[in-house]
Amino acid sequence: MQPTLEAQCLALAQQARQAGKTLATAGTAAKNAWLHATAERLLGEREAILAANALDVAAAPGYGLTAASIDRLTLTAARVEAMAVGLRQVAVLPDPVGEVREGHTRPNGLSVLKVGVPLGVIFFLYESRPNITVDAAALCVKSGNAVILRGGKEAAHTNAALTGFLQAELTAHDLPVHAVQRVQSADRAAVGHLLKLNQSIDLVIPRGGESLIRRVAAEATMPVLKHYTGNCHIFVDASCPYERAEAIVLNAKCQRPGVCNAVETILIHRDWAPGHLTRLGAALRAAGVELRACPESRALIPGALIATDADYATEFLDLILAVKMVSTLSEAVAVIDRYGSKHTDAILTQDAGNARRFTQLVDSAAVVVNASTRFNDGFELGFGAEIGISTDKFHARGPCGLKELTSYKYILTGDGQIRR
Amino acid sequence: MQPTLEAQCLALAQQARQAGKTLATAGTAAKNAWLHATAERLLGEREAILAANALDVAAAPGYGLTAASIDRLTLTAARVEAMAVGLRQVAVLPDPVGEVREGHTRPNGLSVLKVGVPLGVIFFLYESRPNITVDAAALCVKSGNAVILRGGKEAAHTNAALTGFLQAELTAHDLPVHAVQRVQSADRAAVGHLLKLNQSIDLVIPRGGESLIRRVAAEATMPVLKHYTGNCHIFVDASCPYERAEAIVLNAKCQRPGVCNAVETILIHRDWAPGHLTRLGAALRAAGVELRACPESRALIPGALIATDADYATEFLDLILAVKMVSTLSEAVAVIDRYGSKHTDAILTQDAGNARRFTQLVDSAAVVVNASTRFNDGFELGFGAEIGISTDKFHARGPCGLKELTSYKYILTGDGQIRR
Repeated sequence: MQPTLEAQCLALAQQARQAGKTLATAGTAAKNAWLHATAERLLGEREAILAANALDVAAAPGYGLTAASIDRLTLTAARVEAMAVGLRQVAVLPDPVGEVREGHTRPNGLSVLKVGVPLGVIFFLYESRPNITVDAAALCVKSGNAVILRGGKEAAHTNAALTGFLQAELTAHDLPVHAVQRVQSADRAAVGHLLKLNQSIDLVIPRGGESLIRRVAAEATMPVLKHYTGNCHIFVDASCPYERAEAIVLNAKCQRPGVCNAVETILIHRDWAPGHLTRLGAALRAAGVELRACPESRALIPGALIATDADYATEFLDLILAVKMVSTLSEAVAVIDRYGSKHTDAILTQDAGNARRFTQLVDSAAVVVNASTRFNDGFELGFGAEIGISTDKFHARGPCGLKELTSYKYILTGDGQIRR
Repeated sequence: MQPTLEAQCLALAQQARQAGKTLATAGTAAKNAWLHATAERLLGEREAILAANALDVAAAPGYGLTAASIDRLTLTAARVEAMAVGLRQVAVLPDPVGEVREGHTRPNGLSVLKVGVPLGVIFFLYESRPNITVDAAALCVKSGNAVILRGGKEAAHTNAALTGFLQAELTAHDLPVHAVQRVQSADRAAVGHLLKLNQSIDLVIPRGGESLIRRVAAEATMPVLKHYTGNCHIFVDASCPYERAEAIVLNAKCQRPGVCNAVETILIHRDWAPGHLTRLGAALRAAGVELRACPESRALIPGALIATDADYATEFLDLILAVKMVSTLSEAVAVIDRYGSKHTDAILTQDAGNARRFTQLVDSAAVVVNASTRFNDGFELGFGAEIGISTDKFHARGPCGLKELTSYKYILTGDGQIRR
């Protein structure tokens, strides 16, 4: 008799819990050897991976995928090589498990160490890009966590192949094979069952659109690492040189418009606008950006559309930019407070006092002075790979790398100390 | 017309949100001045506080409070002085807000600082001890958070008086008066309303029995800092000298049996038992400890009761201790894994390898070698005051002081950097 879906999910989670316990004490060398060997293995099995992927790509139109989604789903030899590179990059990063984060000796001689430990079991939900299967497994296992992967059904063949190779190399390196598992059922109910199992799963990471994240957060009985929208702002202060504003705004909007740290609204100081806004508007429009502006800004930007209140609240993820004129830094902060998503907000200014006030007053995961919002990213900040950018304040905020997938324990060592 | 309870709770939470925004940028000097002035104020208003407390104490039998609970509720001049001392201790601690936790400069010249910021608004629920009102307000405000206090109805007069003085001194120091607020309604429904308001409340801390914590965790729509039971173990390894075992076990059980880091079960290595367990049992019984032992231990401890499976799962919080014989360190770890609460577990050993294995394998907030479990405490670890001991792994684990009531932001400062 086939076990019920609920029983299958419970078994999966309990296997993950057991694997996590073993993995928590696995050495760094074994984990790194697994990462390097898996990189080799993926390169060696390139043809098998591409063949599995071809099945998914062939079936994609039947799932109603757009051309852009099919492109994200499609693997090439170069994309398989990029996966291997990613695995090797994670191997090079320091192991957060066992890392001594703080330490001191108390007056009574008791030694106190705060030492990194894995969270345990991570349930990772994501959509169609199959490279995330490899990235997530690498980051979770390197940080000592077992991972349960639930990719999109559109990538089922590819993910099954990749998971198979990841598991084969776990076994080959004497690491627990259930450290990486895949939810095989395409039934949405499997997610619901897993989200109930807070005895076996320590953290859920939903990586996808806002509706997926909200649904998971509402259902989960364990903590959720959320990375909601990035409705990012750049405030161009009165003192900003024109060339700097143009370079940074264009970079933040156009270099990769579909990502969470791209700018969505620029706030222009009233004293800066008359000399510069027409030119900036023309440069943005020449780069293919559609501008939606407040009436005062629009008077200086030929061809700009009228911005609605909804535009200021929207993460366009496209070559569209809202523009709003403000009279003071306080007004800029108030707009960010009202419409922003506490992700990434920047000020461009030559005034040190304004830079300081802005960084104090704006409550975002990253507050940027005189640079592009695009730098709020794990690689760019030097964390190595990242598993997402948290818009929460609890546990981890901003880019989440290996360390953010861990907790810590206190190790107290004495020679007979008792409380007085 | 009186607003509904739900509307009152919403107003309270929104006032806290606003106060939190102001408090987030308040200077350390202002917060410390408030702490010192409030300490003075409480000493000056001692008579008023004791008079309010007398009303609560007089009403206490009507609430069915036990003698022990009435004792915890009752203030004396000395207890008011202890509150003032507590406030001054928090004033001396470093301010976690604005603290630079990490920092580096990227190859492109971008400066990256990770800086402490408040969580925002904390909803603190607790039971009858009125000193917690002052402690919690001090820790939350010093860490830049607004706090909503919900004490027990049995302490309503005392808490109203204390909150009034805390607020009067906030106003006197140009700090937002709503940084400290009290839920005035005794209606349990107020808690339910507040637990829905995740737009205005960032964290809930329930401090009380397990049933309170579980109820709050089930209802809350925001993160909950949980400190469940401490079912703490001491494993007496074969190599432990008798005198050390006696001193530490007696301290861990008897110095203050009603607290979460007191030991509840001792695991005795089979090779240690024959020479020592009879003597240890006698010493514990002479100190008034009731012993509940496995059959093999019981054979060596005259007068010990039979331990049931339930005893090993129980946090006695009393002069009762479970005893179990084990053959190996692995067996001790398995017992802790099965019955423990991941709070505090200790090994007493002369064997460095066993000490190391135990600290690696036991997944508890504090793992102790050759010292009393009673040291897992914010004061004892040198954090200054604590607001609780987290048994969660997410966000903060173990003793939670000022830093654990904060998050962080990244401040990125450049001179025109764009992404390539």
